[in-house]
Amino acid sequence: MNLTGKHYIGHAVSADSSDTFHAKNPATGEDLPTAFHEATSGEIDRAMSLAAHAFNEFRHTSAERRAAFLEAIAHEVEALGDALLELTHAETGLPMPRLTGERGRATSQARLFAELAREGSWVDARIDLPQPDRQPLPKPDVRSLMQPVGPVVVFGASNFPLAISVIGADTVSALAAGCPVVIKSHPGHPGTCEAVAQAVVKAAEDCGLPEGVFSLVQGKTNAVGMALVEHPKTQAVAFTGSLRGGRALYDVACSRPHPIPFYAEMGSVNPVFVLPGALANGADALASGFVQSLTLGTGQFCTNPGLVFGMKSESFGAFISASAENAAAAAPSTMLHPGIHQAYNAGVVRLRDIAGVKVAGQSSTEADAAKAQAAVYLLETDSETLRQNPALFEEVFGPVSTAVNCQDAGELEEFANKLEGSLTATLHGTPEDLESHKGLIEILETKVGRLIFNGYPTGIEVCHGMHHGGPYPATTHSYFTSIGTRCIYRFVRPVCYQGWPQESLPEELRNDNPRKIWRMVDGKMTKDPVA
Amino acid sequence: MNLTGKHYIGHAVSADSSDTFHAKNPATGEDLPTAFHEATSGEIDRAMSLAAHAFNEFRHTSAERRAAFLEAIAHEVEALGDALLELTHAETGLPMPRLTGERGRATSQARLFAELAREGSWVDARIDLPQPDRQPLPKPDVRSLMQPVGPVVVFGASNFPLAISVIGADTVSALAAGCPVVIKSHPGHPGTCEAVAQAVVKAAEDCGLPEGVFSLVQGKTNAVGMALVEHPKTQAVAFTGSLRGGRALYDVACSRPHPIPFYAEMGSVNPVFVLPGALANGADALASGFVQSLTLGTGQFCTNPGLVFGMKSESFGAFISASAENAAAAAPSTMLHPGIHQAYNAGVVRLRDIAGVKVAGQSSTEADAAKAQAAVYLLETDSETLRQNPALFEEVFGPVSTAVNCQDAGELEEFANKLEGSLTATLHGTPEDLESHKGLIEILETKVGRLIFNGYPTGIEVCHGMHHGGPYPATTHSYFTSIGTRCIYRFVRPVCYQGWPQESLPEELRNDNPRKIWRMVDGKMTKDPVA
Repeated sequence: MNLTGKHYIGHAVSADSSDTFHAKNPATGEDLPTAFHEATSGEIDRAMSLAAHAFNEFRHTSAERRAAFLEAIAHEVEALGDALLELTHAETGLPMPRLTGERGRATSQARLFAELAREGSWVDARIDLPQPDRQPLPKPDVRSLMQPVGPVVVFGASNFPLAISVIGADTVSALAAGCPVVIKSHPGHPGTCEAVAQAVVKAAEDCGLPEGVFSLVQGKTNAVGMALVEHPKTQAVAFTGSLRGGRALYDVACSRPHPIPFYAEMGSVNPVFVLPGALANGADALASGFVQSLTLGTGQFCTNPGLVFGMKSESFGAFISASAENAAAAAPSTMLHPGIHQAYNAGVVRLRDIAGVKVAGQSSTEADAAKAQAAVYLLETDSETLRQNPALFEEVFGPVSTAVNCQDAGELEEFANKLEGSLTATLHGTPEDLESHKGLIEILETKVGRLIFNGYPTGIEVCHGMHHGGPYPATTHSYFTSIGTRCIYRFVRPVCYQGWPQESLPEELRNDNPRKIWRMVDGKMTKDPVA
Repeated sequence: MNLTGKHYIGHAVSADSSDTFHAKNPATGEDLPTAFHEATSGEIDRAMSLAAHAFNEFRHTSAERRAAFLEAIAHEVEALGDALLELTHAETGLPMPRLTGERGRATSQARLFAELAREGSWVDARIDLPQPDRQPLPKPDVRSLMQPVGPVVVFGASNFPLAISVIGADTVSALAAGCPVVIKSHPGHPGTCEAVAQAVVKAAEDCGLPEGVFSLVQGKTNAVGMALVEHPKTQAVAFTGSLRGGRALYDVACSRPHPIPFYAEMGSVNPVFVLPGALANGADALASGFVQSLTLGTGQFCTNPGLVFGMKSESFGAFISASAENAAAAAPSTMLHPGIHQAYNAGVVRLRDIAGVKVAGQSSTEADAAKAQAAVYLLETDSETLRQNPALFEEVFGPVSTAVNCQDAGELEEFANKLEGSLTATLHGTPEDLESHKGLIEILETKVGRLIFNGYPTGIEVCHGMHHGGPYPATTHSYFTSIGTRCIYRFVRPVCYQGWPQESLPEELRNDNPRKIWRMVDGKMTKDPVA
């Protein structure tokens, strides 16, 4: 890896400011060697202006060229080899096997969006044919399709330095739609961001795409992010991160003279409900799966299960005991950053110190603070304590979960009603349990984006039906997702052509359907050409 | 019409406040007899709480029941007969033939959404089938579809008292989606709102729908609207009105502890470009059509053409002259409200007094101020004056348009670039003109929601392909439309089911596809059941 610490603004590198910062190796607490420069307002303006300029050409590129670009990105990132993963490991403490898997997810995601662009039906082409003789007024010829909105700013997540960062779903879906992308590099893994950006820049150049279709700016201060969101050429923003950071930037986006959509995915508490039938065959498998999900990525997943509800009983007690044993057996592991590690420890203390909350289990090996290691915690409480302490409903980022002994199914519903919007809810049980807890499920359907049965919320499948979103504070707009192919719809808007001549229409709307896509013609889905 | 001046909150009428207001007949300046009560915060809370309660049942109603409800609404509104139209005429000054047409549009729109609900494919059902043996990890069963978000508040428009008000597209699309609706009655036509609300309440009762599925509250003060937007049970808002009012409420919606989407359609300047080929066969037909569009509904359409660009030439001069003659022949007519009338007159004076702007034509009959009559104005200016006076780019609500003599095609592009986001842009010319003005069209494609060729922006076709939206300030979110079947997507969000048992899935997602809808199965569109 040849890291410069500079910004990639179109085809040029830039470092106008002498303010610099270093990434920290969380496992050693030491600064990594590269000095990264803070972006200046001039550099931000250059990146956004180049993006706006590139948009004029990029939005007219064929689906095939965009697809080839996305495939080239995947190829160039793979070509960086394991040196990339070693760098990411040093910056984030995430283990190599995990990073290998995450790279695979990122590159296959880029290829999925290439396929989506190539297939082409995602544009939601609609054609209403004219009726010149209709009474009392003729019906005009009306056709519409989704078109890209313009330059998109992407703030990647600290916890997925490859799959939700420089080439995450935000970036590849925006590029598939025809939007140039300016990345706000994550200060937790700036070297990874730079290395991946080099790969994207090479792919853009090799594909002959206009300068500015992709830029990356570094910055540790809030000022860089604010300036990107405030910039008049920015047309949409995708963000994955904390509620506090996301809300602050959302407020900026909405307060602009011309507001823009700010799509934030801000994590959530992801409740798990253990229904009676789940424990009929013992608690071991369930407890083992649950603690595996809880500790995945050192608990640093947006979908990490932070609350587990069950009805106080011998079998739910057995589940808690078995989970506690699994937690005890789980070795402490390094968090992404010393700051996150401190916040985790403080969060665990905050929960644990509530009267009525006890530690059911915790990693039996001591966590090494110098290595930013998090111990796994399973806390336990009762319904009255939960009722009195709304803090227990709040997400603590890391491998801690609180098991709640409820008195009856009514309490499950009571607490489901009290939940804030969440990305997921998980239910364990038999199909009969689902039927006999209909009320609970009906509440959860209004609270979350994804309901999981007899599975775990972590490990999100990247596919067409996936929804990674949910009511606020999980996200800022519950219609949109940040994972799965629907996420392209954050970066487009319909454009309608009325009475437009065939030869001047976008090809997706022409009578002969040269792209052979699915279209809605007079309300009916068809791939047929218009007669 | 039996008007009470009260609010319709679920099945009850209510009038807790003694603060009242009267609608004014704009053609006489006189108050109409009914005293309408301001809604109190208690009444607003009751309406929203009942809506939230009704949501639990209403969101589970079958498509057939929702469709029947929409059809009953259309039927009950028609059953009010012409007495409704006479009332609306008295409140708005809009002529009876126009109101007859508008009622037809409103009821056929309700029936279109009934059809949409019944057909059912709008839910965007997606199914990704499991691969339990996939390596390195099994692929889960992932299915998702659009579900209603919850109670929706609707602010109708003053200028379409029937088709964009109590039973406008906002209301019928929200009901089709499964969302209860609370209407903020428009203070310009509160009697019309009450009469239509009576019809909706009757339809809801006849269809056996839960109390609170529909409510209407009256109010003239900003406080009523603010309280509706701020109410914690409100999940989305649809608004049609002014930029100032829309932006103020948008700011409230975004500043809530839990922000909600605020979909505002706030009008725009709707530029018209007259390209050289348009005038090859003379200017008369074009000028006549243009002035007809300009004066439709006394110029009080969101899509009213406020600017007309052409290249200074004998033929464009002839178009201006012919349009001026048509304007002179156009009789002044009553505006919706004395306040709107005053704002129009002030707006015309503001434009006319700019040095370099002249009156090319105006209604030759004098406008009767006591009847709130607006004279039609065609103003004329040159490119340098436009360049120096950004005020000329601003919408003046009413029958005034400014023709701009440009020097060359480069100036057309310059001014297109300077336009704010608009609902529409219109081009007149030959297909060859479109090809030779590609640069202009490419700019307009980034500025507007709908491009019209050789037609007029007013008179919006309600259909599947229609887009009535556009970049800010035309709307607050350019992805969404407020007319056409796509407008249902403002009131839904995806809900995803992972590993869910067949019998507990929403029927749209079950293997056997009992609703026989289009679904995306493993990325392919099909109506087939899943094997």
